[in-house]
Amino acid sequence: MILLTRRAEFSASHYYWNEAWSDEENRRVFGKCANKNGHGHNYTLEVTVAGEVDAATGFVVDLKKLKDVLEQEVVQAYDHRHLNKEVPEFRNTIPTTENIAIAVWRRLEGKVPGAKLHRVRVYEMSDIFADYYGEP
Amino acid sequence: MILLTRRAEFSASHYYWNEAWSDEENRRVFGKCANKNGHGHNYTLEVTVAGEVDAATGFVVDLKKLKDVLEQEVVQAYDHRHLNKEVPEFRNTIPTTENIAIAVWRRLEGKVPGAKLHRVRVYEMSDIFADYYGEP
Amino acid sequence: MILLTRRAEFSASHYYWNEAWSDEENRRVFGKCANKNGHGHNYTLEVTVAGEVDAATGFVVDLKKLKDVLEQEVVQAYDHRHLNKEVPEFRNTIPTTENIAIAVWRRLEGKVPGAKLHRVRVYEMSDIFADYYGEP
Amino acid sequence: MILLTRRAEFSASHYYWNEAWSDEENRRVFGKCANKNGHGHNYTLEVTVAGEVDAATGFVVDLKKLKDVLEQEVVQAYDHRHLNKEVPEFRNTIPTTENIAIAVWRRLEGKVPGAKLHRVRVYEMSDIFADYYGEP
Amino acid sequence: MILLTRRAEFSASHYYWNEAWSDEENRRVFGKCANKNGHGHNYTLEVTVAGEVDAATGFVVDLKKLKDVLEQEVVQAYDHRHLNKEVPEFRNTIPTTENIAIAVWRRLEGKVPGAKLHRVRVYEMSDIFADYYGEP
Amino acid sequence: MILLTRRAEFSASHYYWNEAWSDEENRRVFGKCANKNGHGHNYTLEVTVAGEVDAATGFVVDLKKLKDVLEQEVVQAYDHRHLNKEVPEFRNTIPTTENIAIAVWRRLEGKVPGAKLHRVRVYEMSDIFADYYGEP
Repeated sequence: MILLTRRAEFSASHYYWNEAWSDEENRRVFGKCANKNGHGHNYTLEVTVAGEVDAATGFVVDLKKLKDVLEQEVVQAYDHRHLNKEVPEFRNTIPTTENIAIAVWRRLEGKVPGAKLHRVRVYEMSDIFADYYGEP
Repeated sequence: MILLTRRAEFSASHYYWNEAWSDEENRRVFGKCANKNGHGHNYTLEVTVAGEVDAATGFVVDLKKLKDVLEQEVVQAYDHRHLNKEVPEFRNTIPTTENIAIAVWRRLEGKVPGAKLHRVRVYEMSDIFADYYGEP
Repeated sequence: MILLTRRAEFSASHYYWNEAWSDEENRRVFGKCANKNGHGHNYTLEVTVAGEVDAATGFVVDLKKLKDVLEQEVVQAYDHRHLNKEVPEFRNTIPTTENIAIAVWRRLEGKVPGAKLHRVRVYEMSDIFADYYGEP
Repeated sequence: MILLTRRAEFSASHYYWNEAWSDEENRRVFGKCANKNGHGHNYTLEVTVAGEVDAATGFVVDLKKLKDVLEQEVVQAYDHRHLNKEVPEFRNTIPTTENIAIAVWRRLEGKVPGAKLHRVRVYEMSDIFADYYGEP
Repeated sequence: MILLTRRAEFSASHYYWNEAWSDEENRRVFGKCANKNGHGHNYTLEVTVAGEVDAATGFVVDLKKLKDVLEQEVVQAYDHRHLNKEVPEFRNTIPTTENIAIAVWRRLEGKVPGAKLHRVRVYEMSDIFADYYGEP
Repeated sequence: MILLTRRAEFSASHYYWNEAWSDEENRRVFGKCANKNGHGHNYTLEVTVAGEVDAATGFVVDLKKLKDVLEQEVVQAYDHRHLNKEVPEFRNTIPTTENIAIAVWRRLEGKVPGAKLHRVRVYEMSDIFADYYGEP
């Protein structure tokens, strides 16, 4: 078994806000991330798949197809979008790095041809990232 | 003469829109950047100052003071902000990378203690950046 | 369960020397790292914590609090310090990348609010790093 | 137990071609990678070893010796080479990132003094990499 | 006036050989780069254009058009190619980093809509690059 | 004319201290850099040379020779050294990034075979660097 990882990028806006809380509580917990005008990031996504190497191609997965899946399932939905306002899974879920990693996993699960989704890593900035391995 | 450069980062939202144009024309020219919900970036700012090395300190400029100036004049104004909606100089000026570089120059000019502002570079992403050297 | 990682940096001096050995043996084993005047590095620290996502915040851990813990427990103790001379755990332990990773783990264990310390990674340079996952 | 990783780089040419297939099939599956003149990459190799920290040295493995092993076993064989034409293990195996990771593992296994080979990671570009952990 | 830079990447093979010299002389001067099977690199190209900011768009140059020009004029010609064998300008000119920078300049000159080509930078690896500013 | 740049790295210790000042004044101006035990950095050096491309080789400068000059003149003198204590030019000159850039220029001037030294850039960390172009 071998793991293959491909990166993709998207630029998006978001903010953190819990509707069940007061404005004051939101600002206390989320600080400047609570600004409802939104702020943004260049997100980097690393998707890792696991499988056997196909003897005929030398591939665990066809990188072109993997790129297309990332593009169609994630990048087209998130890139140049306001995550809270335009992406359905973040209407009622705060788009933290952790929740974005889980959401990307759910978008990709079962969509990678011939390999098993192993890990989704999302970098919000170069010094903050979340890893999700799916439910056990 | 020697040049000294310091980087700083800020995360912000923006969109591109010319009010004098039709919606259609905005979308034709600006593509997905015309989404008025905004999208965002991790901007990297490189500020270069020029001067003589002070024999007593070995500094062209005190890096701590330069950092404080960048923080007060730029980062506090731009970080975790929606540039179009919250930053005065972008109310009527489109916050492209070029215009951000010019705006940062204007915010910093005359504020760097003991050295001359030489260049402002702004990276919108790692593969796109603008350089501004001030008016001749 | 999800993993969240945050980076921090510190600049420090160190050297490698085993007091039980002759000078010659130290120089044979440690080469130019045996220079007792010390040399230094920009260390990059990656601290990974594991936990469940809190439904109210979308966080495994409050990044601001994690940053504060890294700052107080590690960066303040190591940054702009000579590790052998000024940091207690390296008085009798050689500050190799491996031992720094273990020492950072011990400084952080039990201090991360609401999440479990999962991994400490220390980069001495971009091409050398050590990972420690604690004692099993 | 602790893990230590060291990077190395090599620049090489390769192409993808399955002799059992028609030219057309090769071009359909491998696209521009099927160009038999070859194209090339700056490969980055990350080799991770696992072991206990030696109390006398603070090392899991002597980094100088690990570097020498990487140099002798991998870099001298691959750097500035055409992988398909000049490296024996790729005469009949397509030099994909996955297969290079497996081949590097086989070249290094049993050669790292005093530590266990844990993982071989090969980056073909910064956004594509393969990880191999050996046979279970 | 402001400068705008855009990066692009291509992966290619090359070797260094002067047909006017003996094999021995080629190997003495070019070392392992003289291997006629070729070796390869992930080249990074940085193209800088200079101009005034258009008040209507905030652009010196339309980044989408600049990207298309780089793609059509350079990337399609060089990417996944053997530079010596497949790219006309390197049939009789050695594809060193310097000569690639000059060749990219010549391919782009006069093709950037509405702005002046200012500089072409080519990275062969992260630690080697050439800059060309055109003929004076 | 074309410019060619090569990077090199060295790891060294230093501290900032002006003997003409009181301890208090040193600590006020230099902050934690005034710690006389020293702290350290992974310095990155970028040396740019200018010249004409030699038609026979395609080189402005032989990169192997340039690397050797950097190694002999700078890296051997600075790497794994305490700059204040072991490098002659920093006995009475504070080893700031600015002064290191000037010192590297003086070490290299006239030593690059067949090309003109154009610029020395020294990175102390990825977010701070100094550029020196020599005396006019």
